[in-house]
Amino acid sequence: MFEVRLQTYWADVDAAGIVYFPHFFRFVEHAEEELFRAAGQDESSVMKANHIWMPRVEAFSKFSKPIVRGSAIRVRLKPEIKGEKTIRYNFEIVADATSEKLAEGYVTVVAVDAVTFKSTRIPDAIRTIVLQHA
Amino acid sequence: MFEVRLQTYWADVDAAGIVYFPHFFRFVEHAEEELFRAAGQDESSVMKANHIWMPRVEAFSKFSKPIVRGSAIRVRLKPEIKGEKTIRYNFEIVADATSEKLAEGYVTVVAVDAVTFKSTRIPDAIRTIVLQHA
Amino acid sequence: MFEVRLQTYWADVDAAGIVYFPHFFRFVEHAEEELFRAAGQDESSVMKANHIWMPRVEAFSKFSKPIVRGSAIRVRLKPEIKGEKTIRYNFEIVADATSEKLAEGYVTVVAVDAVTFKSTRIPDAIRTIVLQHA
Amino acid sequence: MFEVRLQTYWADVDAAGIVYFPHFFRFVEHAEEELFRAAGQDESSVMKANHIWMPRVEAFSKFSKPIVRGSAIRVRLKPEIKGEKTIRYNFEIVADATSEKLAEGYVTVVAVDAVTFKSTRIPDAIRTIVLQHA
Repeated sequence: MFEVRLQTYWADVDAAGIVYFPHFFRFVEHAEEELFRAAGQDESSVMKANHIWMPRVEAFSKFSKPIVRGSAIRVRLKPEIKGEKTIRYNFEIVADATSEKLAEGYVTVVAVDAVTFKSTRIPDAIRTIVLQHA
Repeated sequence: MFEVRLQTYWADVDAAGIVYFPHFFRFVEHAEEELFRAAGQDESSVMKANHIWMPRVEAFSKFSKPIVRGSAIRVRLKPEIKGEKTIRYNFEIVADATSEKLAEGYVTVVAVDAVTFKSTRIPDAIRTIVLQHA
Repeated sequence: MFEVRLQTYWADVDAAGIVYFPHFFRFVEHAEEELFRAAGQDESSVMKANHIWMPRVEAFSKFSKPIVRGSAIRVRLKPEIKGEKTIRYNFEIVADATSEKLAEGYVTVVAVDAVTFKSTRIPDAIRTIVLQHA
Repeated sequence: MFEVRLQTYWADVDAAGIVYFPHFFRFVEHAEEELFRAAGQDESSVMKANHIWMPRVEAFSKFSKPIVRGSAIRVRLKPEIKGEKTIRYNFEIVADATSEKLAEGYVTVVAVDAVTFKSTRIPDAIRTIVLQHA
Protein backbone atom coordinates (compact mmCIF):
# COMPACT_ATOMS: atom_id res chain seq x y z
CA MET A 1 0.00 0.00 0.00
CA PHE A 2 1.16 3.51 -0.84
CA GLU A 3 -0.40 6.64 0.57
CA VAL A 4 -0.17 10.37 -0.17
CA ARG A 5 -1.75 13.36 1.51
CA LEU A 6 -3.43 15.98 -0.69
CA GLN A 7 -5.16 19.27 -0.18
CA THR A 8 -8.31 20.22 -2.09
CA TYR A 9 -8.50 23.68 -3.63
CA TRP A 10 -11.06 26.12 -5.02
CA ALA A 11 -10.15 24.83 -8.49
CA ASP A 12 -11.30 21.34 -7.53
CA VAL A 13 -14.87 22.06 -6.49
CA ASP A 14 -18.05 22.64 -8.41
CA ALA A 15 -21.11 24.83 -7.95
CA ALA A 16 -22.31 22.59 -5.11
CA GLY A 17 -19.08 23.41 -3.28
CA ILE A 18 -17.80 19.81 -3.44
CA VAL A 19 -14.98 18.19 -5.38
CA TYR A 20 -16.04 17.75 -9.01
CA PHE A 21 -16.03 13.97 -9.49
CA PRO A 22 -13.58 13.59 -12.40
CA HIS A 23 -10.94 15.22 -10.16
CA PHE A 24 -11.01 12.16 -7.90
CA PHE A 25 -9.31 10.30 -10.74
CA ARG A 26 -6.72 13.06 -11.01
CA PHE A 27 -5.99 12.67 -7.30
CA VAL A 28 -5.51 8.92 -7.78
CA GLU A 29 -3.09 9.61 -10.61
CA HIS A 30 -1.13 12.03 -8.41
CA ALA A 31 -0.74 9.18 -5.92
CA GLU A 32 0.47 6.92 -8.74
CA GLU A 33 3.09 9.49 -9.77
CA GLU A 34 4.18 9.97 -6.15
CA LEU A 35 4.55 6.19 -5.80
CA PHE A 36 7.16 6.35 -8.56
CA ARG A 37 8.76 9.48 -7.09
CA ALA A 38 9.03 7.72 -3.72
CA ALA A 39 11.17 5.14 -5.54
CA GLY A 40 13.39 7.93 -6.85
CA GLN A 41 11.85 7.79 -10.33
CA ASP A 42 9.79 10.10 -12.48
CA GLU A 43 7.00 7.99 -14.03
CA SER A 44 7.04 9.93 -17.31
CA SER A 45 10.79 9.52 -17.68
CA VAL A 46 10.51 5.80 -17.01
CA MET A 47 7.81 5.53 -19.68
CA LYS A 48 9.92 7.51 -22.14
CA ALA A 49 13.04 5.44 -21.44
CA ASN A 50 10.98 2.31 -22.15
CA HIS A 51 9.23 3.72 -25.26
CA ILE A 52 5.78 3.18 -23.80
CA TRP A 53 2.69 5.05 -22.68
CA MET A 54 0.42 3.72 -19.97
CA PRO A 55 -3.15 4.64 -20.98
CA ARG A 56 -6.06 3.87 -18.73
CA VAL A 57 -8.44 1.17 -19.98
CA GLU A 58 -10.93 1.19 -17.10
CA ALA A 59 -11.79 3.52 -14.26
CA PHE A 60 -14.34 3.07 -11.50
CA SER A 61 -15.15 5.05 -8.43
CA LYS A 62 -17.82 4.96 -5.78
CA PHE A 63 -18.17 8.37 -4.12
CA SER A 64 -19.32 7.82 -0.55
CA LYS A 65 -19.06 11.30 0.91
CA PRO A 66 -18.76 14.73 -0.68
CA ILE A 67 -15.40 16.47 -0.17
CA VAL A 68 -15.43 20.23 0.30
CA ARG A 69 -12.66 22.63 -0.71
CA GLY A 70 -9.86 23.17 1.75
CA SER A 71 -10.02 19.51 2.78
CA ALA A 72 -7.00 17.42 3.65
CA ILE A 73 -7.38 13.94 2.22
CA ARG A 74 -5.23 10.86 1.78
CA VAL A 75 -5.17 8.66 -1.31
CA ARG A 76 -4.28 5.02 -0.66
CA LEU A 77 -3.10 2.99 -3.62
CA LYS A 78 -2.98 -0.80 -3.67
CA PRO A 79 -1.56 -1.74 -7.06
CA GLU A 80 -2.04 -5.23 -8.51
CA ILE A 81 -0.11 -6.62 -11.45
CA LYS A 82 -2.67 -8.43 -13.65
CA GLY A 83 -0.82 -10.55 -16.20
CA GLU A 84 2.05 -9.26 -18.32
CA LYS A 85 0.61 -5.99 -19.57
CA THR A 86 -1.80 -4.64 -17.00
CA ILE A 87 -1.68 -2.87 -13.65
CA ARG A 88 -4.80 -2.27 -11.60
CA TYR A 89 -4.48 0.54 -9.08
CA ASN A 90 -7.08 -0.10 -6.39
CA PHE A 91 -7.64 3.05 -4.36
CA GLU A 92 -9.33 4.51 -1.35
CA ILE A 93 -9.66 8.20 -0.56
CA VAL A 94 -10.03 8.98 3.12
CA ALA A 95 -10.32 12.10 5.26
CA ASP A 96 -6.88 12.96 6.61
CA ALA A 97 -8.04 13.73 10.13
CA THR A 98 -10.46 10.85 10.70
CA SER A 99 -9.54 8.23 8.06
CA GLU A 100 -13.24 8.13 7.12
CA LYS A 101 -13.65 6.61 3.67
CA LEU A 102 -14.75 9.20 1.09
CA ALA A 103 -14.34 7.24 -2.14
CA GLU A 104 -12.96 3.96 -3.44
CA GLY A 105 -12.42 2.32 -6.77
CA TYR A 106 -9.75 1.37 -9.25
CA VAL A 107 -7.97 2.52 -12.35
CA THR A 108 -6.65 -0.08 -14.78
CA VAL A 109 -3.63 0.72 -16.89
CA VAL A 110 -1.97 -1.10 -19.78
CA ALA A 111 1.47 -0.61 -21.23
CA VAL A 112 1.42 0.28 -24.93
CA ASP A 113 4.12 0.99 -27.47
CA ALA A 114 4.65 4.77 -27.61
CA VAL A 115 4.27 4.89 -31.39
CA THR A 116 1.87 2.11 -32.36
CA PHE A 117 -0.28 2.16 -29.17
CA LYS A 118 -0.21 -1.67 -29.27
CA SER A 119 -0.27 -3.31 -25.84
CA THR A 120 3.08 -4.56 -24.65
CA ARG A 121 4.79 -6.10 -21.61
CA ILE A 122 5.16 -3.88 -18.55
CA PRO A 123 8.88 -3.04 -18.33
CA ASP A 124 10.68 -4.58 -15.36
CA ALA A 125 11.69 -1.13 -14.11
CA ILE A 126 8.00 -0.32 -13.63
CA ARG A 127 6.98 -3.77 -12.41
CA THR A 128 9.60 -3.64 -9.65
CA ILE A 129 8.51 -0.23 -8.38
CA VAL A 130 4.83 -1.11 -8.41
CA LEU A 131 5.33 -4.48 -6.70
CA GLN A 132 6.94 -2.78 -3.70
CA HIS A 133 3.49 -1.49 -2.79
CA ALA A 134 1.37 -4.46 -3.92
CA MET B 1 -31.59 7.24 -25.99
CA PHE B 2 -30.18 10.74 -26.32
CA GLU B 3 -27.16 11.64 -28.40
CA VAL B 4 -24.92 14.68 -28.78
CA ARG B 5 -21.99 15.39 -31.06
CA LEU B 6 -18.85 16.86 -29.53
CA GLN B 7 -15.49 18.00 -30.77
CA THR B 8 -12.26 17.26 -28.90
CA TYR B 9 -9.77 20.08 -28.40
CA TRP B 10 -6.13 20.63 -27.50
CA ALA B 11 -7.28 21.25 -23.92
CA ASP B 12 -8.69 17.72 -23.73
CA VAL B 13 -5.58 15.70 -24.55
CA ASP B 14 -2.56 14.67 -22.56
CA ALA B 15 1.11 14.20 -23.30
CA ALA B 16 0.35 11.03 -25.25
CA GLY B 17 -1.83 13.11 -27.57
CA ILE B 18 -5.05 11.37 -26.53
CA VAL B 19 -8.05 12.52 -24.49
CA TYR B 20 -7.12 12.56 -20.81
CA PHE B 21 -9.46 9.96 -19.28
CA PRO B 22 -11.30 12.07 -16.66
CA HIS B 23 -12.53 14.27 -19.51
CA PHE B 24 -14.64 11.36 -20.80
CA PHE B 25 -16.82 11.89 -17.73
CA ARG B 26 -17.06 15.59 -18.52
CA PHE B 27 -18.25 14.72 -22.02
CA VAL B 28 -20.92 12.44 -20.56
CA GLU B 29 -22.07 15.26 -18.31
CA HIS B 30 -22.28 17.62 -21.30
CA ALA B 31 -24.63 15.10 -22.88
CA GLU B 32 -26.71 15.02 -19.69
CA GLU B 33 -27.00 18.82 -19.71
CA GLU B 34 -27.90 18.83 -23.40
CA LEU B 35 -30.60 16.22 -22.71
CA PHE B 36 -32.22 18.76 -20.39
CA ARG B 37 -31.66 21.61 -22.83
CA ALA B 38 -33.31 19.56 -25.59
CA ALA B 39 -36.40 19.55 -23.34
CA GLY B 40 -36.22 23.35 -23.11
CA GLN B 41 -34.76 23.25 -19.59
CA ASP B 42 -31.50 24.24 -17.98
CA GLU B 43 -30.52 21.40 -15.63
CA SER B 44 -28.98 23.75 -13.05
CA SER B 45 -32.09 25.91 -12.97
CA VAL B 46 -34.28 22.85 -12.52
CA MET B 47 -32.10 21.72 -9.61
CA LYS B 48 -32.22 25.18 -8.05
CA ALA B 49 -35.99 25.45 -8.44
CA ASN B 50 -36.30 22.09 -6.67
CA HIS B 51 -33.73 22.89 -3.93
CA ILE B 52 -31.57 19.92 -4.81
CA TRP B 53 -28.15 19.02 -6.09
CA MET B 54 -27.51 15.85 -8.07
CA PRO B 55 -24.08 14.56 -7.01
CA ARG B 56 -22.55 11.54 -8.64
CA VAL B 57 -22.28 8.45 -6.43
CA GLU B 58 -20.65 6.08 -8.91
CA ALA B 59 -18.80 6.42 -12.19
CA PHE B 60 -17.41 3.71 -14.42
CA SER B 61 -15.86 3.76 -17.83
CA LYS B 62 -14.12 1.28 -20.06
CA PHE B 63 -11.89 3.06 -22.58
CA SER B 64 -11.73 0.91 -25.71
CA LYS B 65 -9.88 3.19 -28.11
CA PRO B 66 -7.80 6.31 -27.60
CA ILE B 67 -9.35 9.53 -28.94
CA VAL B 68 -7.01 12.10 -30.45
CA ARG B 69 -7.53 15.87 -30.45
CA GLY B 70 -9.60 17.31 -33.23
CA SER B 71 -11.90 14.28 -33.15
CA ALA B 72 -15.62 14.44 -33.71
CA ILE B 73 -17.37 12.07 -31.32
CA ARG B 74 -20.90 11.31 -30.25
CA VAL B 75 -22.01 10.63 -26.69
CA ARG B 76 -25.05 8.37 -26.36
CA LEU B 77 -26.93 8.46 -23.08
CA LYS B 78 -29.40 5.82 -21.97
CA PRO B 79 -30.75 7.00 -18.63
CA GLU B 80 -32.42 4.58 -16.20
CA ILE B 81 -34.48 5.62 -13.20
CA LYS B 82 -33.42 3.33 -10.33
CA GLY B 83 -35.90 3.67 -7.50
CA GLU B 84 -37.08 7.02 -6.12
CA LYS B 85 -33.79 8.83 -5.72
CA THR B 86 -31.36 7.57 -8.30
CA ILE B 87 -30.68 7.97 -12.01
CA ARG B 88 -28.11 5.88 -13.82
CA TYR B 89 -26.85 7.38 -17.05
CA ASN B 90 -25.51 4.53 -19.15
CA PHE B 91 -23.33 5.87 -21.92
CA GLU B 92 -21.40 5.01 -25.03
CA ILE B 93 -18.92 7.27 -26.78
CA VAL B 94 -18.53 6.56 -30.48
CA ALA B 95 -16.56 8.02 -33.37
CA ASP B 96 -18.82 10.43 -35.28
CA ALA B 97 -17.80 9.25 -38.73
CA THR B 98 -17.80 5.48 -38.20
CA SER B 99 -19.89 4.91 -35.03
CA GLU B 100 -17.00 2.78 -33.73
CA LYS B 101 -17.28 2.42 -29.96
CA LEU B 102 -14.53 4.30 -28.13
CA ALA B 103 -15.75 4.07 -24.53
CA GLU B 104 -18.74 2.94 -22.51
CA GLY B 105 -19.85 3.02 -18.92
CA TYR B 106 -22.25 4.71 -16.57
CA VAL B 107 -22.57 7.56 -14.12
CA THR B 108 -24.97 7.17 -11.20
CA VAL B 109 -26.59 10.25 -9.74
CA VAL B 110 -28.71 10.80 -6.64
CA ALA B 111 -30.91 13.73 -5.75
CA VAL B 112 -29.92 15.39 -2.44
CA ASP B 113 -31.28 18.32 -0.52
CA ALA B 114 -29.30 21.43 -1.52
CA VAL B 115 -28.55 22.36 2.09
CA THR B 116 -28.34 19.10 4.06
CA PHE B 117 -27.01 16.90 1.21
CA LYS B 118 -29.44 14.19 2.40
CA SER B 119 -30.78 12.00 -0.39
CA THR B 120 -34.28 12.87 -1.53
CA ARG B 121 -36.86 11.94 -4.15
CA ILE B 122 -36.09 12.92 -7.75
CA PRO B 123 -38.44 15.81 -8.58
CA ASP B 124 -41.11 14.99 -11.16
CA ALA B 125 -39.86 17.77 -13.44
CA ILE B 126 -36.55 15.90 -13.74
CA ARG B 127 -38.05 12.42 -13.83
CA THR B 128 -40.27 13.38 -16.76
CA ILE B 129 -37.43 14.79 -18.82
CA VAL B 130 -35.14 11.84 -18.18
CA LEU B 131 -37.82 9.24 -18.90
CA GLN B 132 -38.30 10.64 -22.40
CA HIS B 133 -34.94 9.13 -23.28
CA ALA B 134 -35.05 5.96 -21.14
CA MET C 1 -12.75 38.62 -37.15
CA PHE C 2 -13.81 35.08 -36.40
CA GLU C 3 -16.60 34.15 -34.03
CA VAL C 4 -17.83 30.93 -32.40
CA ARG C 5 -20.76 30.22 -30.13
CA LEU C 6 -20.16 28.16 -27.01
CA GLN C 7 -22.24 26.80 -24.18
CA THR C 8 -21.05 26.84 -20.58
CA TYR C 9 -21.46 23.69 -18.51
CA TRP C 10 -21.47 22.55 -14.89
CA ALA C 11 -17.83 21.53 -15.37
CA ASP C 12 -16.89 25.14 -16.15
CA VAL C 13 -18.12 26.84 -13.01
CA ASP C 14 -16.72 27.19 -9.52
CA ALA C 15 -18.20 27.29 -6.04
CA ALA C 16 -19.51 30.80 -6.68
CA GLY C 17 -21.55 29.39 -9.58
CA ILE C 18 -19.61 31.33 -12.22
CA VAL C 19 -17.13 30.27 -14.89
CA TYR C 20 -13.76 29.54 -13.27
CA PHE C 21 -11.46 32.14 -14.82
CA PRO C 22 -8.77 29.91 -16.39
CA HIS C 23 -11.54 28.34 -18.51
CA PHE C 24 -11.97 31.65 -20.35
CA PHE C 25 -8.58 30.95 -21.92
CA ARG C 26 -9.75 27.47 -22.89
CA PHE C 27 -12.78 29.02 -24.60
CA VAL C 28 -10.48 31.36 -26.54
CA GLU C 29 -8.40 28.40 -27.65
CA HIS C 30 -11.54 26.57 -28.81
CA ALA C 31 -12.24 29.57 -31.01
CA GLU C 32 -8.68 29.42 -32.35
CA GLU C 33 -9.11 25.74 -33.24
CA GLU C 34 -12.48 26.40 -34.86
CA LEU C 35 -10.90 29.20 -36.92
CA PHE C 36 -8.62 26.55 -38.42
CA ARG C 37 -11.46 24.07 -38.80
CA ALA C 38 -13.51 26.71 -40.64
CA ALA C 39 -10.65 26.75 -43.17
CA GLY C 40 -10.94 22.98 -43.56
CA GLN C 41 -7.85 22.34 -41.43
CA ASP C 42 -7.14 20.71 -38.09
CA GLU C 43 -4.71 23.00 -36.25
CA SER C 44 -2.86 20.11 -34.60
CA SER C 45 -2.37 18.35 -37.93
CA VAL C 46 -1.08 21.57 -39.48
CA MET C 47 1.41 21.95 -36.60
CA LYS C 48 2.51 18.33 -36.96
CA ALA C 49 2.93 18.61 -40.73
CA ASN C 50 5.13 21.67 -40.15
CA HIS C 51 7.11 20.13 -37.25
CA ILE C 52 6.16 22.90 -34.86
CA TRP C 53 4.29 23.56 -31.66
CA MET C 54 2.63 26.89 -30.95
CA PRO C 55 3.07 27.56 -27.21
CA ARG C 56 1.53 30.59 -25.59
CA VAL C 57 4.00 33.25 -24.41
CA GLU C 58 1.52 35.73 -22.97
CA ALA C 59 -2.10 35.69 -21.88
CA PHE C 60 -4.22 38.52 -20.57
CA SER C 61 -7.88 38.81 -19.75
CA LYS C 62 -10.11 41.36 -18.13
CA PHE C 63 -13.26 39.73 -16.75
CA SER C 64 -16.05 42.30 -16.88
CA LYS C 65 -19.07 40.21 -15.94
CA PRO C 66 -19.41 36.80 -14.31
CA ILE C 67 -20.76 34.04 -16.56
CA VAL C 68 -23.06 31.47 -15.00
CA ARG C 69 -23.42 27.84 -16.09
CA GLY C 70 -25.82 27.11 -18.87
CA SER C 71 -24.88 30.37 -20.61
CA ALA C 72 -24.62 30.77 -24.35
CA ILE C 73 -21.63 32.94 -25.20
CA ARG C 74 -19.73 33.96 -28.29
CA VAL C 75 -15.95 34.22 -28.55
CA ARG C 76 -14.68 36.77 -31.08
CA LEU C 77 -11.11 36.40 -32.25
CA LYS C 78 -9.15 39.12 -33.99
CA PRO C 79 -5.76 37.62 -34.81
CA GLU C 80 -2.76 39.82 -35.57
CA ILE C 81 0.47 38.59 -37.13
CA LYS C 82 3.32 40.24 -35.18
CA GLY C 83 6.57 39.77 -37.05
CA GLU C 84 7.74 36.45 -38.46
CA LYS C 85 7.17 34.20 -35.47
CA THR C 86 4.30 35.53 -33.43
CA ILE C 87 0.50 35.64 -33.59
CA ARG C 88 -1.54 37.64 -31.13
CA TYR C 89 -5.15 36.50 -30.78
CA ASN C 90 -7.12 39.47 -29.48
CA PHE C 91 -10.45 38.29 -28.12
CA GLU C 92 -13.78 39.38 -26.77
CA ILE C 93 -16.29 37.13 -25.06
CA VAL C 94 -19.88 38.35 -25.30
CA ALA C 95 -23.29 37.12 -24.21
CA ASP C 96 -24.92 35.34 -27.12
CA ALA C 97 -28.34 36.90 -26.66
CA THR C 98 -27.36 40.51 -25.98
CA SER C 99 -23.77 40.84 -27.27
CA GLU C 100 -22.89 42.37 -23.89
CA LYS C 101 -19.13 42.19 -23.35
CA LEU C 102 -18.20 39.69 -20.62
CA ALA C 103 -14.43 39.52 -21.04
CA GLU C 104 -11.67 40.70 -23.34
CA GLY C 105 -7.95 40.19 -23.71
CA TYR C 106 -5.36 38.48 -25.84
CA VAL C 107 -3.27 35.36 -26.09
CA THR C 108 0.11 35.56 -27.78
CA VAL C 109 1.51 32.53 -29.51
CA VAL C 110 4.91 31.77 -31.04
CA ALA C 111 5.88 29.03 -33.44
CA VAL C 112 8.65 26.76 -32.09
CA ASP C 113 10.45 23.76 -33.48
CA ALA C 114 8.66 20.62 -32.24
CA VAL C 115 11.87 19.06 -30.94
CA THR C 116 14.14 21.92 -29.84
CA PHE C 117 11.37 24.34 -28.76
CA LYS C 118 13.39 27.13 -30.47
CA SER C 119 11.25 29.88 -31.98
CA THR C 120 10.83 29.65 -35.72
CA ARG C 121 8.97 31.28 -38.61
CA ILE C 122 5.19 30.79 -38.73
CA PRO C 123 4.55 28.39 -41.63
CA ASP C 124 2.75 29.93 -44.60
CA ALA C 125 -0.09 27.39 -44.26
CA ILE C 126 -0.88 28.86 -40.85
CA ARG C 127 -0.19 32.48 -41.77
CA THR C 128 -2.66 32.27 -44.65
CA ILE C 129 -5.47 30.85 -42.53
CA VAL C 130 -4.98 33.35 -39.73
CA LEU C 131 -4.75 36.35 -42.06
CA GLN C 132 -8.22 35.57 -43.45
CA HIS C 133 -9.62 36.78 -40.13
CA ALA C 134 -7.14 39.56 -39.33
CA MET D 1 6.35 37.73 -0.24
CA PHE D 2 4.84 34.28 0.16
CA GLU D 3 6.17 31.18 -1.55
CA VAL D 4 4.93 27.61 -2.06
CA ARG D 5 6.54 24.62 -3.72
CA LEU D 6 4.44 22.62 -6.18
CA GLN D 7 4.91 19.54 -8.28
CA THR D 8 3.64 19.28 -11.85
CA TYR D 9 1.76 16.15 -12.88
CA TRP D 10 0.68 14.30 -16.00
CA ALA D 11 -2.72 15.98 -15.63
CA ASP D 12 -1.10 19.41 -16.01
CA VAL D 13 0.59 18.98 -19.36
CA ASP D 14 -0.63 19.11 -22.93
CA ALA D 15 0.20 17.27 -26.13
CA ALA D 16 3.50 19.18 -26.37
CA GLY D 17 4.47 17.68 -22.99
CA ILE D 18 4.48 21.07 -21.23
CA VAL D 19 2.18 22.62 -18.64
CA TYR D 20 -1.04 23.75 -20.34
CA PHE D 21 -1.04 27.52 -19.84
CA PRO D 22 -4.35 28.03 -17.98
CA HIS D 23 -2.96 25.76 -15.24
CA PHE D 24 -0.38 28.42 -14.37
CA PHE D 25 -3.27 30.48 -13.00
CA ARG D 26 -4.45 27.48 -10.98
CA PHE D 27 -0.97 27.19 -9.47
CA VAL D 28 -1.07 30.88 -8.52
CA GLU D 29 -4.43 30.35 -6.85
CA HIS D 30 -3.03 27.39 -4.90
CA ALA D 31 -0.37 29.74 -3.57
CA GLU D 32 -3.08 32.25 -2.61
CA GLU D 33 -4.97 29.56 -0.68
CA GLU D 34 -1.77 28.39 1.02
CA LEU D 35 -1.03 31.99 2.03
CA PHE D 36 -4.31 31.94 3.99
CA ARG D 37 -3.63 28.46 5.34
CA ALA D 38 -0.20 29.60 6.56
CA ALA D 39 -2.12 32.15 8.66
CA GLY D 40 -4.22 29.34 10.12
CA GLN D 41 -7.22 30.21 7.95
CA ASP D 42 -9.15 28.55 5.15
CA GLU D 43 -9.76 31.20 2.48
CA SER D 44 -13.18 29.81 1.55
CA SER D 45 -14.32 29.79 5.17
CA VAL D 46 -13.14 33.37 5.60
CA MET D 47 -15.11 34.39 2.51
CA LYS D 48 -18.20 32.56 3.74
CA ALA D 49 -17.96 34.10 7.21
CA ASN D 50 -17.80 37.53 5.57
CA HIS D 51 -20.61 36.85 3.02
CA ILE D 52 -18.36 37.58 0.06
CA TRP D 53 -16.81 35.97 -2.98
CA MET D 54 -13.53 37.13 -4.43
CA PRO D 55 -13.84 36.84 -8.22
CA ARG D 56 -10.92 37.61 -10.46
CA VAL D 57 -11.26 40.75 -12.60
CA GLU D 58 -7.93 40.59 -14.43
CA ALA D 59 -5.30 37.98 -15.06
CA PHE D 60 -2.01 38.31 -16.90
CA SER D 61 0.90 35.99 -17.38
CA LYS D 62 4.06 35.99 -19.41
CA PHE D 63 5.32 32.44 -19.96
CA SER D 64 9.10 32.58 -20.28
CA LYS D 65 10.01 28.90 -20.27
CA PRO D 66 7.98 25.74 -20.82
CA ILE D 67 7.53 23.55 -17.74
CA VAL D 68 7.53 19.79 -18.26
CA ARG D 69 5.63 17.24 -16.16
CA GLY D 70 7.32 15.98 -13.05
CA SER D 71 8.81 19.44 -12.42
CA ALA D 72 9.24 20.96 -9.00
CA ILE D 73 8.38 24.65 -9.11
CA ARG D 74 7.88 27.46 -6.65
CA VAL D 75 5.15 30.09 -6.87
CA ARG D 76 6.04 33.45 -5.30
CA LEU D 77 3.16 35.77 -4.44
CA LYS D 78 3.55 39.45 -3.75
CA PRO D 79 0.08 40.73 -2.89
CA GLU D 80 -0.78 44.43 -3.10
CA ILE D 81 -3.88 46.01 -1.62
CA LYS D 82 -5.23 48.45 -4.26
CA GLY D 83 -7.84 50.69 -2.66
CA GLU D 84 -10.68 49.40 -0.51
CA LYS D 85 -11.99 46.57 -2.65
CA THR D 86 -9.13 45.15 -4.68
CA ILE D 87 -6.13 42.87 -4.17
CA ARG D 88 -3.53 42.35 -6.87
CA TYR D 89 -1.51 39.17 -6.50
CA ASN D 90 1.73 39.70 -8.38
CA PHE D 91 3.43 36.38 -9.00
CA GLU D 92 6.53 34.69 -10.26
CA ILE D 93 6.90 30.98 -10.99
CA VAL D 94 10.45 29.70 -10.73
CA ALA D 95 12.20 26.35 -11.06
CA ASP D 96 12.63 24.87 -7.60
CA ALA D 97 16.21 23.71 -8.14
CA THR D 98 17.64 26.75 -9.92
CA SER D 99 15.21 29.61 -9.16
CA GLU D 100 15.14 30.32 -12.90
CA LYS D 101 12.08 32.39 -13.75
CA LEU D 102 9.51 30.41 -15.75
CA ALA D 103 6.53 32.77 -15.68
CA GLU D 104 5.38 36.01 -14.10
CA GLY D 105 2.25 38.07 -13.99
CA TYR D 106 -0.61 39.06 -11.75
CA VAL D 107 -4.16 38.19 -10.83
CA THR D 108 -6.47 40.95 -9.64
CA VAL D 109 -9.27 40.11 -7.27
CA VAL D 110 -12.23 42.13 -5.96
CA ALA D 111 -14.44 41.46 -2.99
CA VAL D 112 -18.13 41.15 -3.93
CA ASP D 113 -21.26 40.51 -1.93
CA ALA D 114 -21.98 36.75 -2.04
CA VAL D 115 -25.58 37.27 -3.18
CA THR D 116 -25.64 40.46 -5.27
CA PHE D 117 -22.09 40.16 -6.70
CA LYS D 118 -21.72 43.94 -6.06
CA SER D 119 -18.19 45.03 -5.18
CA THR D 120 -17.62 45.65 -1.50
CA ARG D 121 -14.86 46.47 1.00
CA ILE D 122 -12.24 43.77 1.62
CA PRO D 123 -12.97 42.45 5.12
CA ASP D 124 -10.30 43.28 7.73
CA ALA D 125 -9.76 39.57 8.40
CA ILE D 126 -8.57 39.17 4.81
CA ARG D 127 -6.73 42.49 4.60
CA THR D 128 -4.66 41.60 7.67
CA ILE D 129 -3.61 38.21 6.34
CA VAL D 130 -2.71 39.52 2.91
CA LEU D 131 -0.75 42.50 4.26
CA GLN D 132 1.57 40.16 6.16
CA HIS D 133 3.06 39.19 2.80
CA ALA D 134 2.81 42.54 0.98
